[in-house]
Formats: sequence, C-alpha cells, structure tokens
Amino acid sequence: MDPENLPVINNYLDANEPVSSEACLSRMHFHDNQRKVDYVLTYHYRKRGVQPGLGSPGQSLAIVSNGETGKEPHAGGHGDIELGPLDALEEERKEQREEFEHNLMEAGLELEKDLESKSQGSIFVRIHAPWQVLAREAEFLKIKVPTKKMYEIKSEGSIAKKFNELLQTLSSPLKPRVPEHSNNKMKNLSYPFSREKMYLYNIQDKDTFFDNATRSRIVHEILKRTACSRANNTMGINSLIANNIYEAAYPLHDGEYDSPGDDTNDRKLLYREWARYGVFYKFQPIDLIRKYFGEKIGLYFAWLGLYTSFLIPSSVIGVIVFLYGCATIEEDIPSKEMCDQQNAFTMCPLCDKSCDYWNLSSACGTAKASHLFDNPATVFFSIFMALWATMFLENWKRLQMRLGYFWDLTGIEEEEEHSRPEYETKVREKMLKASGKSVVQKLGTNMTENEEEDDEDKLTWKDRFPGYLVNFASILFMIALTFSIVFGVIVYRITTAAALSLNKSTRSNVRVTVTATAVIINLVVILVLDEIYGAVAEWLTKIEVPKTEQTFEERLILKAFLLKFVNAYSPIFYVAFFKGRFVGRPGSYVYVFDGYRMEECAPGGCLMELCIQLSIIMLGKQLIQNNIFEIGVPKLKKLFRKLKDETEPGETDSTHSKHPEQWDLDYSLEPYTGLTPEYMEMIIQFGFVTLFVASFPLAPVFALLNNIIEVRLDAKKFVTELRRPDAVRTKDIGIWFDILSGIGKFSVISNAFVIAITSDFIPRLVYQYGYSHNGTLHGFVNHTLSFFNVSQLKEGTQPENSQFDQEVQFCRFKDYREPPWAPNPYEFSKQYWAILSARLAFVIIFQNLVMFLSVLVDWMIPDIPTDISDQIKKEKGLLVDFFLKEEHEKLKLTDEPAQRSLGGGRRSTSRAPSSAPSGRSQPGSIASSGSQHTNV
Amino acid sequence: MDPENLPVINNYLDANEPVSSEACLSRMHFHDNQRKVDYVLTYHYRKRGVQPGLGSPGQSLAIVSNGETGKEPHAGGHGDIELGPLDALEEERKEQREEFEHNLMEAGLELEKDLESKSQGSIFVRIHAPWQVLAREAEFLKIKVPTKKMYEIKSEGSIAKKFNELLQTLSSPLKPRVPEHSNNKMKNLSYPFSREKMYLYNIQDKDTFFDNATRSRIVHEILKRTACSRANNTMGINSLIANNIYEAAYPLHDGEYDSPGDDTNDRKLLYREWARYGVFYKFQPIDLIRKYFGEKIGLYFAWLGLYTSFLIPSSVIGVIVFLYGCATIEEDIPSKEMCDQQNAFTMCPLCDKSCDYWNLSSACGTAKASHLFDNPATVFFSIFMALWATMFLENWKRLQMRLGYFWDLTGIEEEEEHSRPEYETKVREKMLKASGKSVVQKLGTNMTENEEEDDEDKLTWKDRFPGYLVNFASILFMIALTFSIVFGVIVYRITTAAALSLNKSTRSNVRVTVTATAVIINLVVILVLDEIYGAVAEWLTKIEVPKTEQTFEERLILKAFLLKFVNAYSPIFYVAFFKGRFVGRPGSYVYVFDGYRMEECAPGGCLMELCIQLSIIMLGKQLIQNNIFEIGVPKLKKLFRKLKDETEPGETDSTHSKHPEQWDLDYSLEPYTGLTPEYMEMIIQFGFVTLFVASFPLAPVFALLNNIIEVRLDAKKFVTELRRPDAVRTKDIGIWFDILSGIGKFSVISNAFVIAITSDFIPRLVYQYGYSHNGTLHGFVNHTLSFFNVSQLKEGTQPENSQFDQEVQFCRFKDYREPPWAPNPYEFSKQYWAILSARLAFVIIFQNLVMFLSVLVDWMIPDIPTDISDQIKKEKGLLVDFFLKEEHEKLKLTDEPAQRSLGGGRRSTSRAPSSAPSGRSQPGSIASSGSQHTNV
Repeated sequence: MDPENLPVINNYLDANEPVSSEACLSRMHFHDNQRKVDYVLTYHYRKRGVQPGLGSPGQSLAIVSNGETGKEPHAGGHGDIELGPLDALEEERKEQREEFEHNLMEAGLELEKDLESKSQGSIFVRIHAPWQVLAREAEFLKIKVPTKKMYEIKSEGSIAKKFNELLQTLSSPLKPRVPEHSNNKMKNLSYPFSREKMYLYNIQDKDTFFDNATRSRIVHEILKRTACSRANNTMGINSLIANNIYEAAYPLHDGEYDSPGDDTNDRKLLYREWARYGVFYKFQPIDLIRKYFGEKIGLYFAWLGLYTSFLIPSSVIGVIVFLYGCATIEEDIPSKEMCDQQNAFTMCPLCDKSCDYWNLSSACGTAKASHLFDNPATVFFSIFMALWATMFLENWKRLQMRLGYFWDLTGIEEEEEHSRPEYETKVREKMLKASGKSVVQKLGTNMTENEEEDDEDKLTWKDRFPGYLVNFASILFMIALTFSIVFGVIVYRITTAAALSLNKSTRSNVRVTVTATAVIINLVVILVLDEIYGAVAEWLTKIEVPKTEQTFEERLILKAFLLKFVNAYSPIFYVAFFKGRFVGRPGSYVYVFDGYRMEECAPGGCLMELCIQLSIIMLGKQLIQNNIFEIGVPKLKKLFRKLKDETEPGETDSTHSKHPEQWDLDYSLEPYTGLTPEYMEMIIQFGFVTLFVASFPLAPVFALLNNIIEVRLDAKKFVTELRRPDAVRTKDIGIWFDILSGIGKFSVISNAFVIAITSDFIPRLVYQYGYSHNGTLHGFVNHTLSFFNVSQLKEGTQPENSQFDQEVQFCRFKDYREPPWAPNPYEFSKQYWAILSARLAFVIIFQNLVMFLSVLVDWMIPDIPTDISDQIKKEKGLLVDFFLKEEHEKLKLTDEPAQRSLGGGRRSTSRAPSSAPSGRSQPGSIASSGSQHTNV
Repeated sequence: MDPENLPVINNYLDANEPVSSEACLSRMHFHDNQRKVDYVLTYHYRKRGVQPGLGSPGQSLAIVSNGETGKEPHAGGHGDIELGPLDALEEERKEQREEFEHNLMEAGLELEKDLESKSQGSIFVRIHAPWQVLAREAEFLKIKVPTKKMYEIKSEGSIAKKFNELLQTLSSPLKPRVPEHSNNKMKNLSYPFSREKMYLYNIQDKDTFFDNATRSRIVHEILKRTACSRANNTMGINSLIANNIYEAAYPLHDGEYDSPGDDTNDRKLLYREWARYGVFYKFQPIDLIRKYFGEKIGLYFAWLGLYTSFLIPSSVIGVIVFLYGCATIEEDIPSKEMCDQQNAFTMCPLCDKSCDYWNLSSACGTAKASHLFDNPATVFFSIFMALWATMFLENWKRLQMRLGYFWDLTGIEEEEEHSRPEYETKVREKMLKASGKSVVQKLGTNMTENEEEDDEDKLTWKDRFPGYLVNFASILFMIALTFSIVFGVIVYRITTAAALSLNKSTRSNVRVTVTATAVIINLVVILVLDEIYGAVAEWLTKIEVPKTEQTFEERLILKAFLLKFVNAYSPIFYVAFFKGRFVGRPGSYVYVFDGYRMEECAPGGCLMELCIQLSIIMLGKQLIQNNIFEIGVPKLKKLFRKLKDETEPGETDSTHSKHPEQWDLDYSLEPYTGLTPEYMEMIIQFGFVTLFVASFPLAPVFALLNNIIEVRLDAKKFVTELRRPDAVRTKDIGIWFDILSGIGKFSVISNAFVIAITSDFIPRLVYQYGYSHNGTLHGFVNHTLSFFNVSQLKEGTQPENSQFDQEVQFCRFKDYREPPWAPNPYEFSKQYWAILSARLAFVIIFQNLVMFLSVLVDWMIPDIPTDISDQIKKEKGLLVDFFLKEEHEKLKLTDEPAQRSLGGGRRSTSRAPSSAPSGRSQPGSIASSGSQHTNV
C-alpha cells in the first residue's frame, strides 16, 4: 500500500471519512479498507507521450465508483486523463473499456483503479460488489444459502453407528485439521436466496454472508453478461479478453498461503492441510476445497480422491496376484519343461541366413518371467477389475449424490449459457454476408439476446459443414499418422534386429536392445504427439464453432480423448493382439519390404512383451508428464517471465517491489485453464489400469503411487501456482463419466481378448483337459510346437555356418500345424481349430458373464444412497414447516399494517422502488431477452 | 333422476333455492344440479330390521355437506338414521365410515348420499370438491395450469416446414376428428397453480377451470391422505377398501359413450374417434386420452402407438426378407442337391429297430421350406432389428420428452407416496410385538405421518427376510417347474414318436403329428401357467410387504416378468439352442429313460422347427389371450354378475331400472386394475419380435396385425368396460423402459446365437470360402454329412425288416465327424472345429458390432428433441417476462394501498384468514408431518 500515492475518493460508503494512512490488515480491499475486492480486471496501456502533471500525488488514483444516485460518475473519471496522441487501436480499446466499465457501474458494481500515470503499464480495475448487487444476483442465480434452521442428520442403526464411531476414531489422524461445518451431525437447511425472505437467513454481517467464492462468482456472472456496444456488441468479459481489450480477469485469492503470521485464511489452511506432500496420507478437506474453489473443482478432487482410494484394494489384490505368480513359478510345469536341458527342442532359426537353430531351453528365463503374469490368478483378477470398475462408477454416482446433498446442489438447473465470442463473430459474418446492411440493423436490436431467432442468425449445419469436414479429415489423418508411426517403429524393430543379428558381437542381446529402444521411441512419440494432439484438438474444436462454452468443452474433450487414446494405446494394442500373428511359418514366412521377416514374439509368449510395453509406457508417461510438464514447464515459464520482467524497463515495477498488493501477486500467477488436462491424464491412466490389467496386474499399484503424488501436485498447483479460478457450480463431472463408463465396458472386451488370445491360459486348459494323458500339463510344451522339415527351407534362407551341435532334420516352431509327414503338411491342425474354438468361446462367456455381473452390480447398488434420499425427502418437509413457522413469527412481530404492506411485496419484483434502484434494471434486462421471443 | 324420491337439502350453494324438479341435463351432479360429482364411494349396508318410516319420500336423502361455517353438519346427518339392531361388525364399519366422511368434510369436500332406506343395498357417497378445495389442493400438488399467455411454437426451417405441411395434408384423413387445443402452433404457457397469482390464469368459470380428470385426481388425493382413527388409524381410502369398509371408490365417467343425442362429451368423442375397430387406421387422439384418463394411461397409449407404428417398417422389411427367401428358393444349391434323387444319400435310421434307412431326398420339402427362413437376408434383417429396437427406444425417449413438454410434465417431482395399508398393518404388528402397549400410544401419535422414525416403526431387512426367502424359493421353484414341464413335453415327444413309429400306418407323418401336438401342449401350458404365475407373483409381492404402491408395482412387474418370460420362452430356447445337440452319433446314441433316443432336428435343420414353434406360440398366445382373456372373460364376468343381480331380490334395483344415474352405470363396470397386464402382453410380444427375429422374419407382421386390433381393444375396454381410472401424473413408463432396453440388449446376443448356432449360415459360408473347389455351394450337403459304417451299429438297434432298396454299407448322418476309415473314427473332424470357430467368431463380431452400432445410434440421437429443448428454454424466459408484465399491470390497476396489502400476501399461507378457513388446515397438516422430524 502506498497511501501517499493513492488517496481515496470514496463517494459511496464513507465519503466524508478521512483517508486512513496506516497499514491495512488485508491487501484485498479498496483503498478505504472497507470494500472488499471481489474481482480484478487488468489491461496494459501504452501512451505515446506522458503528461508530466499526471504523475503527481493526489491525482494518480482514478476512482470510478457509482453510488445510490445513479448519476454518471464516468464523466468525472473521464476528465482525469487528457488525451494524448494515442494510436487508433489503443484509443478504440480505451473507449471500449470505458464503456464496459460504465456498464458495470450501471449494474451496481463499484470500481477502483489507478491512474494511467506512466507511459505504459498494467492497470488493475478492482471490482467490489455491494450488498444489494450480491442480494439481487444471488436471487437471480438461485444461490442456495443456509437458513437459520439446523437439523440433525439421521444416524444409522445402532450397530452401524458403533462401527462408524470406531472407524472415525481410527481414522482421526488421517483427517485434515480444518474447521468442519460446526458439527458433522447437523446441517443447515438451505433455501435459494430471496430478498423478500431475508428473515429466513441468519445474516449477521452483510459483508461476510456470502463467502469470497460466491461473491466473485456473482461478479463474474455480471461480467459475463454485461454488453459492450462499441466492441461490436459483444457480450461479456470473455469476448473483451478475446479481443485483447482486457488482458485478464480473475478473482482474488484469500491471501498469501505462506505468510508467516498467525492469521489464517482458507488458502493458508488449504496449503497447510492439503497442498503439501507432507500430508499425503490425509483425507482431502473436500468441503473446504469446494468452498474455496467452487463445486466443479471440488468434484474433481472428490473424484480423484475416490479413484485413488479405490485403487488401494485393487493394488493389494494385484500385488497378491503377482506374488502368487512368484510363488508358483517353480511349480509351473510348462516353464520347467522349457528349462529342462534334456528335453532339447531344436527350434527353427529366428531369422534367415544369419540365425542358427537354437535350443528352447535357452529361453528358460523369459518363460519363467512370463509365468509371473500369465497364470490363472490373472483371469480372476481381470474379472475382479471389471467389477471393480463398475463398483467405482457406481460409488462415484453415490458420492456425487451425497456431495450434491451436502453442497445443496439438488435441484439446481443448468444455467443458461451465453454464446461464445467466436460463435457470435461467425454469426455476424454470416449475416453480413447474407443481406448486407439491412440485416446489420436487425442485428443491433437482437444481438443482446443471442438466442435462436431465424435460420439467419444462427449457424445451421450448412455453415458448419466445412468445419465438420476438416474435423473429420484431420482426425482420420491423425489416427492414420499414429498408426503409421506404430508401423514405423515395427519396421525399425525388424530392420534393426536384422542388422544387429548380422554382427556376431551384438547378436546375443538383440532382442533386449531392440525392444528397449523401440519402446523408448514409442514413449517419446506418445509424449510428443500427446502435446500436439491436444493443441490440434483445440484448433479443430474452434473450427467447429460450437455455440456455448459447454458444448465447446464437450467436443474438445471427445476429440482430445479420441486422439490421445489412440496415441497412447495403439502400440500396446499392436503388441497385445497383432504381434506375432502374421509371421507365417518356416518355409513360407511373411516378408515386409522384401527380405525382412515379420517379427514374432519371444518364446515366452507375447504377454511378457505386452507387460514390458505397458509398464514402460505407463510409468514413463506418468513420470515424465508429472515431472516435466506439470512441475518443470510451469517453473520454466515463471523463470522466463521473471527474466523478461527484468530485462524490460523497470517502470511498472515501482509498486510491485515494495509491498505487492494481492492483485499484483495473483497477476503474476499462471491463469487457470480448466480441468480438462487433469481429467484427461487420469482417464488415460484409468485405461492403463483397466484395459490390460490381465497382462499387468501391477498397474493399479503404480497408478496408486502416482495418484498419491498427483493429488498433492494438483492441489499445490491450484493453491500456489494458479490464479484463483472462478467458482463454477455443477452437479456432476459431465462427459468424463460417460468416457469412464465407456472405458469400463471396453475393458471387459479387451481383457477377454488378452486372456483368450494373448495369454497361454486357454491352450493350457485345453491341453490339460483335452489332450493330456494324465490330466497334468506335462508334455504341454511339446504339444504347442509343430515340426518342420528343414530340407523344405527355401533356398537361401538356411542358416549359414550352422554351429548347432547336432544334425538337424526337423526343427520346431510354435504353432499348431500338421507335421511334415501328414497328408496335408503345415496346414492348421485340428488342435489349432479346437483351441481357437475354446479361445473364442472363452471370449463370449467372459464378456457376457462379466457384463451381466456389471449390470447386476449397477442394479443392486442404488444410485442415490438411501440415507441421502431419505434426507432429501425429510428436508422438503422441514422446509415447509420452517417457512410456516418463520412467517407466523414475522406476522406476530410486525403487527402494524403499514409494515406488513411494505414487507408483503411479491417475490422478485414488486419491491418498493426506493429500496434498490439498481435491483430493477436486472429483471428488466432478463425480461427483455424473453419478451422478444413472442414475436418470433 | 327421481326428484320425488330425493329432495335436496342444500346448505352451501343455494340453501334457500327451491328444489328443481325438472329433468337435469347431466346425471353427474348433486341433486341441486349445480355441484358436480367428482368422486363416488360405494358401500354395501345391511340392516337386521327395517324402520318403516325411513322409506318415505322427503327423508330418504341423507345429505351431508359442509359449508363455510365450519360447524358439524354431521350431527344432523346422524340423526336421520335410527340405529337398528345391526351386528357388531356392521356397526363398527358404519362408525368408521361416518368418521371418515366427517373427516372428508373437515377437509372441505361436500358429500351427498341417499338414506339407507332398505334392509340392505348399495349406497353411493357422491363427493364434490368446491372451488376453494380445488384451488388449495392444486397449489399443493403443484398442478400446472395454462396461464393467459399463449406463444407460438417455433416452426422448423423452410424446407422442413413445407415437407411437414405436405405430410399433414396427406395424413389428414388419418387424423382423429377431435377438437385440437385451439391451434397446433400455439401453446399456453403453464405455471403451477397458485392462489395468489390468480390474475395469471384465464379463469372464466371456476366450475370448469379444472377439467374432470384433474378434479377427480384432487379428490382422490384427499381421499388417500384422510385418516380414520377408528379404523386402526389407517390412512386413506385404499386401506378402508382393503378392510371392506367401503366397497369401491371411483371417479365418474363424463357421460354415456353411446347416448344417441348430439351432446358430446369427451367419453363419446373418444368412443367415436378412437375406441372402435372402424377407426383402426387413424392416429390416436393422445391429447384427449391424456385429458380424460390422465398422463399414465396417455403414456401407455402413446407408447403402444409408437411401437405399432415402428412395427410397420420392420414388417415391410420382414416381408421382403421372406419374399426374398421365396424367390431364391429355386436357386438354393443345398436344397436342390438334397432334392436331387440322383445324389441318393442313404441316411442312418432315425430310431432304433423300427426305423429304416432313408433317402435324404425324401426330406426335400423341409429343406426347401427351411430356406425361406435360413438365408443370408435374415442375417441383415436381424442386424436391422437390433438397431430397430435401439431406434425405437430412442424415439420413445424423445416422444416422452415431447409429450412431457406439451403436457407440462417437465420439472414435476415425484410425489411422495403414502405407505400401503398392508405395510402399515405389518409395522403395527411388529410394534405391538416389540414392546406392548407403551408403543401403541406412541403409534397413536406417530401414525399420521408414516415416515421413518426409528428402526422400530419401519420394517428392516430382518423383518422382511422370511418374505424374501419365500420369494426366492418360490421363484426358483416355479422356474424349475417351467423347465420340468418343458422337459416333460420333450419326453412326450420322444416317447410318442417312438410309439407312433412302431405302427406302420402312422409312421409316415410321425414328425408332423408329434411336433404339432407338442407345440399345442406347450401353448396350453404357457397360457395356463401365465395366469397362475401372474397370481403367484402378486401373492409373492404381497408377502414382501413393499412400503409404497410404486415399489409394490415395480417388484410385482419384475417378478411377473421374470416368470412369464421364462414360461413363454423356455420351450423356444430349447428348440433354438439345445434340441438335436445331445443326440450322440450312430453307434453311440444318447438315451433318456433307457431306450428312448434323444430327439434330433428335422433334416432341414432346427431353424424350421424353431420357426414353427415361434409362430404357433406367438400367434396362439396373442389370439387366445386377446379373444378369450380380454374379450371373453370380461363378457362372462358381466353376464355372471347380471345373473347374480337377477337372482338376488331386486330390492336395490328400483333406482337402477328406471333411469340409472351415472354412478350406477359406472358401478356396474369392471374396476380398473392397472396397466401391468397390458404392458406385460406387449413386452412379451416385443420379445417375440426381437429375440428370435433371425429365425422368423414374419414376427413383426403378426405383431403389427395384432397391435392394430390391440390398440382399439384396449381403447374400447378403457372407454366402455372399465370404471374411470384415477388420473395419475407420471413422467415416464417407469420400469418398463428398463425391461424393454434389457430385452433389446439380450436380443442381440440371442440373434447372434440363432444365426451362428441354429442356422446353416456359417457352415455354408465356411464351405463356400474354405472347402468348395469352385467357390459355390455345390457339394455342401455331402460335406455336412458324415459316414457311418452300419456294421458298427449296436446289437439290437439295426433296422428290422429293412425294406431299403439297396444294400447299405455306409449310412450318412448330419454331423462333422471323422469317417470310419480314419485313424480315429467318429471323432469330431477338423471341419467341425473350424466351423465351430467360425460360428463363435461370428457371435463375437456380431454382438460387438451391433452393440457398438446401438451405442452409436443411442449417442447420435439426442434424448431431448432439439426443438423441444429450445422450447423449454424459451418457455423459461417467457415465464419471467410474463410474470413481470402481469405484476406491473396489476400494480397499475390496484393503486389503492389497502388493496395492495390485501393482495400482497405471501405465498401459500399468509392469506387473510377470512377468505378460506379450510385452506388453513391443509398446510398445517403437512407442516405437522414435517415438524416432528426435527426431534428425530
């Protein structure tokens, strides 16, 4: 604060009070230390010439603030600044800003800003919403506020109660130490705010009745719908920011999170109890998060918390399954047979010419490793995980309902959304094109409503067709690009393997080298394309010109999800379902690019490779994205900005350096850009956890470890690194839920195929019960290997310089084919078809069984918890009761008929005109947006 | 009317007006010809001795009616009847009735009834709801009523508009000639009725502002919640009817449907334009149906109408598919080969001993017939039908939303339901048991609320456990019963076939005889069990003691559906998937009951038999259920009642015979028992249409024909044969939608299996592309038949007295097995496994493809039609606008402050106490039901 430099001209609350020159407690108020800053707009200004007189103290604060009189204080503010030789654009912007600010004041807001004293700099327009604006808007937005009435939340039956109490005691060290809403057992009855029912609410202090998040939400609501006729009739602050008229608009944080003093604010509390790695073991203070950041962000963290806690049981079982694999590794007959030197299966060479025959026992290691993931326990684990996914979604629905009840979201309606600025521009262009100037006039009258009127002033599918076409083509192109990169990596693998096997010294670890490098290439490609696709999806959605922010978000999410999903999973799908299936057979191999044989899986089966691929991509993606993109890049950006600030002339720094105001501090933070990246990351992870869980039972563990960090990382970002987001009211997580349940359904199919096709589970079963002589797996390895007569190897593909210690007449390869001595050699054998039937039958049974179980789980768990639905019913009854009681009391108190006639006005409009002059403009503006519809 | 016999004592509207003795226009009014009868309660009374003086004219009408004064007119009514020596039960009931009627009058209703003049007879208590009761209740029930404001419904773009107009013109003869709501393009803005906003509504005549359905609904609402403390504190008329205190309670029809005069009423209109077979080609007047019968029944007919119209395209395509089969019957190579005498496949005997070898060409007929249903077109048809089912459900959702919009159902909340009488009784019993008399007192105070209080006064799962157990056991038992009956029919078929084939004369048409009789037995069993299961399901649901009517209905439906579904479909599932699969092979047949071979399918494949089974069961069920149960049984019941009435002493008939009152007429109709049977019938039919459409493409045609009749049949029943149902407000068709979508999903799987397993589609494809030498189906029949060496037939199973004209060394049988000369004779051959793989692969591909397409269709068609969602948004805007305008005008009109203070009361309670004394009791009673919750 710099009282000498910024004297206060206060023409509303305490115009006659002398300016206080002492340091104020909070740096979040107007200069009078009374009116709270609820919102800040910033813009950059630049002047060609600086008037010398403007820099002097006493005139550097251009307060613009309206009072009760409704006269135009704007004119006064105008006089403060003498017009210098600004360039045209700057001048234009300045006028638009002035008009907009004027309109804001008309709407009842109070503004304060510094004078544009220097040749260029940032100006912060601080906005304060006085009580009557807050009350008016709260009524319009139907914001539910607590009434005086408290009621006890019904407790469970005695046994459940005791159990619950025990649980509470046990988990108390895990609870964040934040002040709870008085008592967990009591809840305030809430009712939408109404200015005529003020007696219902417990209004002790009008300044604090609405909390900061609500206040800024209300201001944001006004900012969004205030028009600016100069700026092409655009609606709202978003258009103005899009047109560079303002630079940013943000509500203020509640204070500093790391200030040393004892004074607590919610931000500090959040930082202490939530946004630090040190408290990773604690529950999240969801109610406080919601209070500070609004429902949308609150729901995200609640969702993330539920997901993380659901990962705990699946991690435990995953580890058990893995340990079961470790424990039974010695008892596994097929891998014992493979490792047995005496069995000595002579295998056909893995490549033409340069590769030699080899002994199967040399692949003993991979066989054993593959048993870790390819054992019967994984089948049950993947059934478990499919049901787990259903349970998770069901429980989320319930938690959402529960939160909705406690946060008073039941019964809120979808808010009507304003069109996006881009949409409006497009419509305007279309109308201009359509019929010249006559339409423009029409536009002038209609633009304030931006509702559908005729075909002419909305975009039909004809207008959008080019956009859709570009979208469709680009998405196809990008999917094709992804596939071709995957194919490129395959080619890399094939060629490198071939090249390396020529060289004797490298031959021994060809497979390891090739696999490792290829997976790393894949990972890098995925990471790079992920960023590119995110940008492309946004660009494509912009081309589509969706009408509202909500549709924009939904379409963006769908596109981004599709692209990122394909990007992240296509190499994995390749390994799981396609690798090694187009190899051909000895004597008639499939070749790509003339001479390179298609790659096959390691002798232990593709499952092992799938597991490696999965773990590297999943871990790599998480580690790198978390570390580099979420921690590193913001740090770098901050550094870069700091450097830039320092290199620029320090003119604007004068106020910053001494004792920065809260708006200065917040301005230096990153702007909030939505939850989409956070959700997307988690959803892709959810895919890793569910889609291929059959091949990688440890995925939940890694996901859990990642998420424990992720929660605090995100928390830290929101609390310390981002400007405070606007509090958005929402009932659910929207399209993400559909995507999650889609992944859940898809995972059933993909796991069915992984178990049936990729793993050796079915062949073993078939062998054990269909072909084995003694009902054990003895002889299984032999059964899976077909014979090949080496004399039938094509000319030039025989191993050169074979150093194999035996004379080879038949070599073996992994497939079910007729032996060379059969009437139809090398055709698929009966076993092949029998096993294929069994595999497919397994897919059908698994898929339908698991889907049926999921439906059953879905049906058995009610979407609304019974106690909540009881409470909601009860609340309805209580509300009627409370109303009647309050009204009776009120009638008793105000016996005089005069008072009664004053208080007895009708809802929302028939207020005595003296009480709130600005309250009248609002219903009128909404009314006009409706009234013209009747003529349509 | 009989004015001499029934003088009117009218103490409310026109107490001093002389009684009018002329014939009244309508027979639906109180005797004063002014107050409409909105509801009728009837009861039987019986006296031991008849007072002679009571039969005299001038005293036989015991009018009980309350007025504004609030004094107890009941006492006067009491004095009219001298107590005779009634028996205790009658006396008790009489007192309960008196108390109940007294309570009704307290609630503001007006009652009229005749004196109990004879020794026994029926008494009709006519109930009229005066305006202030209607207004009060409409406000509480939040009934939306039209306001003065009309607005135009947005029309589509110009092309769609023209197309629509053309369609309108073309379809105009199909439109029922009922008065539309003024104009299709305009809609009244609706708003929940509020007594303080009367100026909003266009109230011209308070007697007709609420239509008859709404009036009776309001009365029913009051009847449902009025308590009767004498009758064990039961709540509502339903308990009283259950306890035989009243016999029936029903609203009145609007008049006679077949009266000759020109006077129209809605019932007559409905009869003329809807409930006759003669108008079968017309659309249904859904709005009128809804107006007359309420939303629930309106939605049923709307649903039935949509379903029927959706059957049209599927019928057309089904017929085309069938015709395609007919047209290609001569080109079908397999059936040509089968019919070819020269091919001469010698088949193995169909039964032991008595059957001979036979030539495949003798089965030529069935082979050809089977092609009608087993051709590639059916595959596409079943994909089509799966998508059709999805489309139908999606369109129903849309229609539901559209109707919801036009019927002003958007935003209505679930009404809180009262407990069922049975539930209350059970709770009372439990409490009595629990802690004796002390609880009874508590009960006395709490019973008026019947909400959850403690564990003690609600049923926990412990109390319900026996009921659930019985339910579970009974359902299992009945499913087992169904299965054993199916098995019994199989045994019947096997044994009869064996017996018949012993006799030479019957041998030729064994199969036809056996199949036909077996199917008829199945059909009869299904029809009988259907009725039994319906009753059992109801009994079981009663045992469960569900709390509310809604849960009762849902559980009943689920149980009844499960049982009826299993009952109707188990024989069909047997034929489709199991018949002929456990036959074994020549030389090692599977025997049941020592000596009877398992039955196999006809040589044309099981599909033909499935088709026969399906068509007979479907058609038989529809024809018999429609004709006998829906037309015959009600007629019989009526006849029976008539006969009974005639045999009884004609005492009560005196008033009936001359000129029956509307309540007499309605009393003689059947009571309405809910829509469950109607829905159930249609849902089972929906199953026939979708589940096995692959085997019977004509199913939609038969369903369509049936439904065209069904609509009018149901309509006729509702208009002419049933008492008027209570108008029930509901937003959707509830659990039926879930059942429908479940059937839709299940149908995908079942069709996949029918095509893959039952039909020959896959083997033909595999043969054509895998085994055929020239890519055609030539040789397919040979390929499907395996060889058997007749010398290996077991001793005693060879044909006796073989009259086959050749020496037989090998006989053929339909299976894929190794030939006798192979190393492992009679094992499944490689072809078997290959074809099995193909079948299973087809199932997987078909199921996932169709499910994916369904999801896509579901996703692409928005649940809410865009025009409706636009309108709903627009309506919100209009409402605000309209409110403001009306209030402004009102303020202008009533300038005097006195008037303003009178009209400016708060919503719902702060009315001036003089205006409606009875209006006050209502909010109070609701309030008290809530107020005690706070102490919980």
